[in-house]
This record gives sequence, structure tokens and C-alpha cells, in this order.
Amino acid sequence: MIAPEKFFSGIGKRLKASEVRELLKWVKRGGIISFGGGMPDPKTFPVEEMKEIFSDIFSDRKLGEEALQYGTTEGYNPLRETILKMLRKSGFKILEDIENIVITTGSQQALDLIAKVFIDPGDVVIVEAPTYLAALNAFSYFQPNFEVVPLDKDGMRVDLLEEKLESLRKEGKRVKFIYTVPTAQNPAGTTMPNDRRKKLVDLAYEYDTIIVEDNPYGYLIFDDRVKFDYLGAFDDEGRVIYMSSFSKILSPGFRLGFIAGHREFIRKLILAKQAADLCTPSLTQMAANEFLKRGYLERHVEKIKKVYKEKKEAMIKALETYMPEGSDWTNPVGGMFIWVTVEGVDTTDMARRALERGVAYVHGRAFYPENAKELGKNAMRLNFSYPTIEQIEEGIKRLSEVVKEFRGH
Amino acid sequence: MIAPEKFFSGIGKRLKASEVRELLKWVKRGGIISFGGGMPDPKTFPVEEMKEIFSDIFSDRKLGEEALQYGTTEGYNPLRETILKMLRKSGFKILEDIENIVITTGSQQALDLIAKVFIDPGDVVIVEAPTYLAALNAFSYFQPNFEVVPLDKDGMRVDLLEEKLESLRKEGKRVKFIYTVPTAQNPAGTTMPNDRRKKLVDLAYEYDTIIVEDNPYGYLIFDDRVKFDYLGAFDDEGRVIYMSSFSKILSPGFRLGFIAGHREFIRKLILAKQAADLCTPSLTQMAANEFLKRGYLERHVEKIKKVYKEKKEAMIKALETYMPEGSDWTNPVGGMFIWVTVEGVDTTDMARRALERGVAYVHGRAFYPENAKELGKNAMRLNFSYPTIEQIEEGIKRLSEVVKEFRGH
Repeated sequence: MIAPEKFFSGIGKRLKASEVRELLKWVKRGGIISFGGGMPDPKTFPVEEMKEIFSDIFSDRKLGEEALQYGTTEGYNPLRETILKMLRKSGFKILEDIENIVITTGSQQALDLIAKVFIDPGDVVIVEAPTYLAALNAFSYFQPNFEVVPLDKDGMRVDLLEEKLESLRKEGKRVKFIYTVPTAQNPAGTTMPNDRRKKLVDLAYEYDTIIVEDNPYGYLIFDDRVKFDYLGAFDDEGRVIYMSSFSKILSPGFRLGFIAGHREFIRKLILAKQAADLCTPSLTQMAANEFLKRGYLERHVEKIKKVYKEKKEAMIKALETYMPEGSDWTNPVGGMFIWVTVEGVDTTDMARRALERGVAYVHGRAFYPENAKELGKNAMRLNFSYPTIEQIEEGIKRLSEVVKEFRGH
Repeated sequence: MIAPEKFFSGIGKRLKASEVRELLKWVKRGGIISFGGGMPDPKTFPVEEMKEIFSDIFSDRKLGEEALQYGTTEGYNPLRETILKMLRKSGFKILEDIENIVITTGSQQALDLIAKVFIDPGDVVIVEAPTYLAALNAFSYFQPNFEVVPLDKDGMRVDLLEEKLESLRKEGKRVKFIYTVPTAQNPAGTTMPNDRRKKLVDLAYEYDTIIVEDNPYGYLIFDDRVKFDYLGAFDDEGRVIYMSSFSKILSPGFRLGFIAGHREFIRKLILAKQAADLCTPSLTQMAANEFLKRGYLERHVEKIKKVYKEKKEAMIKALETYMPEGSDWTNPVGGMFIWVTVEGVDTTDMARRALERGVAYVHGRAFYPENAKELGKNAMRLNFSYPTIEQIEEGIKRLSEVVKEFRGH
């Protein structure tokens, strides 16, 4: 057999299996309660509704043929229309028509296309600390210089962002974009209030940069008192590139995401998508559009919110009951994750012990770029959407025992 | 509004709408017979079978949940198993298990991942002249130096490939890979006989390079006398990276492709896919696997072959009847395209005239890299799978009139 190494490109050589992925392989061996993944609860999936919708599509020869044929790269127009209406209703200002929207193969593809279209090696990209792991992954192939801005319980510290932007300007460095998950953040579970959102957009104006707003969890806010607008509601200039997904409100298996923004940005992203996969399947786009048009989404989202609220509360209660002194955690108003910090514990070192004791999490360092990993050394991300309530209680109990034991070590 | 241009990366700036895409927009205006696209005949789509299969999936709560959940990046294992068996039956030597296979979101994603994992700027990539347009497109973002090897009626001139490899070796240049569509080639419609295939693999050994064998049309050989093996059948060393797709034999809308090869190559391609779209939808993978398992593919492929054979024969007959002296064309044994050359006619210049007269094709230059476009100046690609037989007859008649008129001009 040949020696494969010498054939790889620079990017090819840099591709490494993530530690997280390796850790999660353990989970499959059974007996382990996993807070490690980011999967929705499959019990909430609308299987009955999908049976009805797919049957309707394939019962109509013309629709069936359309579903099986190539679609356009930019996406299925009726779905683009539906999304446009939803976003305009949410107050997005600059969206004129469907040319402001491209459908992507999951929001992961949106991240990949954004990286391709915007990042040159060495470009400054600002991310939250911590930030979404798979965004770091997608951006990294294009070799940006990551700068980080810490979070507090209200999300990105925009005061520190301003300092960062100012000091970068003094160094003569332009910022390509600021990547943020302002709502029910992954991994930290934080949600930015409106004053911070407005300030964030103002800073993009002032420092002549753009913002990538990633919003997979905006529909999963289970505390009804919490009100906020999307960043696009503060933007008159086309500086916000908004991306979201049907993964958390309908089906992650559909791989349906979308990007909305300035039409020139969208035009380039469509061209990049053409080379990436030609088009996203029409079939799943048609099914998602029917799901929305038939009014199933509202009912379905209420159901998910109810389930996730119960699970979150169970996890908070278990953390309060079992975790030792010196532990702290966020209390999210939505989404799927709680961020836990434990003084004096290196969560990377502890991860294997935790697996041996039958509980998995993702260690904090995974959510920081290379130059800032130490900020995450005492932290871990816990997912509450996938495990059952019984598993949450038992898993937190095991985790707290591991923490105590590991500290005593 | 902001000025978007300054935010784009080098790749972003290089992304341009293709002329072909612009031309094909005309087609939508109606009244035009299009030989320009590459779409299957939707009348052949297995809509009834899909209705049955999707209904079965969603009637089983457990299967339905699996179909809607995240899948693994490498693909749905039962489908990988099915593909493995098919490829081993076809004589692929180095494939041991499903770790040699990754499912992709259409073969376009396979091209994109291969480009990412293998091509550094300046790397030499050898392509056929002419070659598949979308492969040039996907590879180009990573800025290879393309070298071309001409085709004759039996596909790639492997004697000229040998000369090319030898002269590149003398210049001290390594070849990253050779990209070939050996069977029912797009755009030329040619199929390589086995002696050339063997020679091609031998040359990869001798010059220590690898081959990307793109095979979307291998199942659509409508001349039963034609026998050949895939390149993998001649390869003991893992030098052949094979890619294919369900687009032409089941549904392009499913966006289901796959890559098979050396497990270290596949491992890297899986990592690249993780950043590109996390996974391909489980739903369509499950449906495709059921389609194969239920034995529907054989019956379905026979149906497509019959339809395409009739259409190809209609197009050949129309070309023979109408085209003027100095025209020549390939007579493919499979696939979806005929390659026509017309002496003394610049097909790029003629394209607009043809559209005005109600017929569309893709001009030859589109199928050559920048440094070799002039080789295609007298050529055009005609698709026969999508138009009806009546449209084929009328369209070729119109085309021949345009050629005569344009020559007289």
C-alpha cells in the first residue's frame, strides 16, 4: 500500500480527529450517561407529521418529481419566502426579498461557506470565550487569527469588545467579522439583553466590521418573560449576517440551515455553495416548508420547550443538590446547555475519570481557540436535552462524586 | 448600506457567476429547447417506490426518530455496507470494510472535500481535455495548476498522459492527482477500454501519484456489449480514489454521493466533511438503502437505460439528418451527453444566436481550465437525457440552422 501522508494538502495535514469525538466514542460502549453531545430529544421529533407530509408529497406525481430532481443552489423558493416572512416579522430591517436568503445544508455548511467567502489566512476574527466548537472548527481551516471576548451571565461583554476593537485599531488591524451566538449560547447558555445587542451593532458600525449572528436556539426560549430582538433589528447597513437552522426545532437529520443578509454577501455565498454541494435536497426543504405552512411548528416548539424546561430544571436541581463548594453554573433561559465551572479542577484531566465512573461531558478547553484554551480549564459543558430526567439526576450525582474524588486526589 | 467588496477573502473575490449559469437563465424564459443542463429525465423517477419507502420509515417510530436525528459524519452504516458489497463485487481490490467508504452530500461535495484535503496552491492536477465543469469549479478554489491530457473516442489518451508525466518529472514537478471520468464521460460521452484503464493505473504506480475516478454514469451503459472494469480493479496499492453518486440512478435531489479508497484518505475526508456539513441526512440515506435492499435498483436502471438509449439514438439520427459538413460528434455507449464539434464555428460566440433561435447548449470552452480553453472553441456539449424525443429532433434542426447561418455570416 502507498504511504498516504505525502499526498495531503496543508489543510489536509491540519485535519485532526477532535478529542471530543474520541471521548464520545466511549459513550457508545454503554453504561455511560452522556451530557457530552448536543442532540435534541428524539422523543420530541414530529414523526407522525412527517409521515403525513412525505406521503402527500409523493402522492402527487408532479411534486414527487420536483422533490427528486436537482434544486437550485440558492434553495427552494417557497421555503425562502416563508423564512423571509418570519425574519421580517422578527424585525430584520434590510431584508427585501428572497435574494437576501440562501438555504444551506445545515448551519455547519453556513459556517463553512462564511469561512470560505470571508476569511483569508491571518484575518482577525473575534469570537466569544467560550464559543461554539464547530464554528472554531469550520473557521480554522482558513487560518484566521482568533481574538476572544469573554462572556458573563448576560453573554458577550460588549464593553470588553469595545476595548478589543480599539486596541486592534491602534495596531492597524482590521477585524473581518465578529462571530456571536447571542441567544441561549452554546456552550454557555447565556442570552444577551437588548442594550448589549444594540451596542454590539453600534460597534460594528463604528469599527467598520460585520457580525455573524448564529441563532440555532432562538425558538427554544422556555422562560416566557425573556424578551429580545435579533441583531438584524438594529442594523440598517447590512452588517449583520444571520444564520439559523431547523435542526433544533424540527429535525437535525434534515440538515437544513439558512443565511440571511446583504444580497451581495448572499450572492457570493450561493456561488460558494454551488461548488460545495450544488444544492440542498429539495425534498427536505419541501417537507420543512409544509411543516411551517400547516402551522405545525408553533405546536411543536411548545412541546419541545416544555420538555427542555423540565430537563433544565432537573439538572439545576441536581447541581444544587450534589455539587460541592466552589462549583458554579449558568441557569439558561433556553437552548440545550449548562456551563459549569469547578474551582481547582482541570476538567480535561478529569474527563477520563468521569467516563470510568459512567458520566461524560465536554471539557471547557474545547470551546476556546488555540491561543485561549486555558480560559476553559475549570469548565465543562453539560447537555440537558438528550438525557432523560432520571439520567440527569443520576449523572449529576456521579459527576459530583468524581469532582470530590478528583479534588481529593 | 455598506460596501461589501472589501470584506471578501481571496476565494470570495474569485467566486464569479459562470457564463453557463447565466446562459441557462435564458432557458427559463420558455420557448427554448435546452440541451444545456445535465438533468435526468424526471419521468424516470421512482416516485411510487419512494412513497412506499418513506411511509415505511415514518410508520416505525424508532426508524422515524433515527431518520430525523443527527447521523454520523461518515454516513449511515447499512448504506456503507451495501455500497461496499457492490464495489467489491465490481472487483475493487483494496476495500476491506466500511472504513474505506464515506457518504457525501452529492458527488459535488466529494469533489470539494477532495480539493480541500489534497490541493495546495500551485499543486499540479491533471484533468482530461475536456473535463467535468463542476470538478474544475470545485478544484479551482484551491488554486492548482491544471495540466490537460486530450481525449479521443476511447477516452483519455494515456500515451499522451505518459508523455505529460515524464515531462513534468523532468521539470521536477510532482503530480498531486489525475482526475478522470473514464466511463460515459461528461462532457465527451467517451468510455475507456480496459487496456487504457490498466495503463492508467500502471502510470500512477510508476509516477507515484493517485487517481480520482469519478463515475456517475457507470450504471447507465445502454450498449450491453461494452465491458470494462473500474480502475479500482487494477489497483493493489490504494492509488485509486473512487467517487460515485445516486444522482443519475435514483434521484439527484437526494444529494447522495460517496467516496471509496485507502482508509487513511477516507479518514481525512471524513474530518473535512465534519467541518463542511457534519453529516448527510440519515433520511435520504435510509431511503436509498431500502431502494437497493428491496431490489428496486436493477429494475429502475433498466428503465432509465431504455429511455436514454432511445433519446441518444434520436439525437444521433437528428445530427446525421440535419448537421452540415464539417460537423462531428461522439456516439456514447452510456451516460447523458454527446460532444459535437463544428469546424470553423466559435461555439461561445454562437451561443447567444442559438438562444435567440430557441436552442441552448453549453459551449466547449466551459469544459477546459483557464490555460486550455481554446481547445474547446469549436465544441459544444449536448444533453439528451432531459429533453423529449420531439424536442431533440426539433432542437437539433434549429441548431443545425444556426450553425449554417452563423458560418455564412
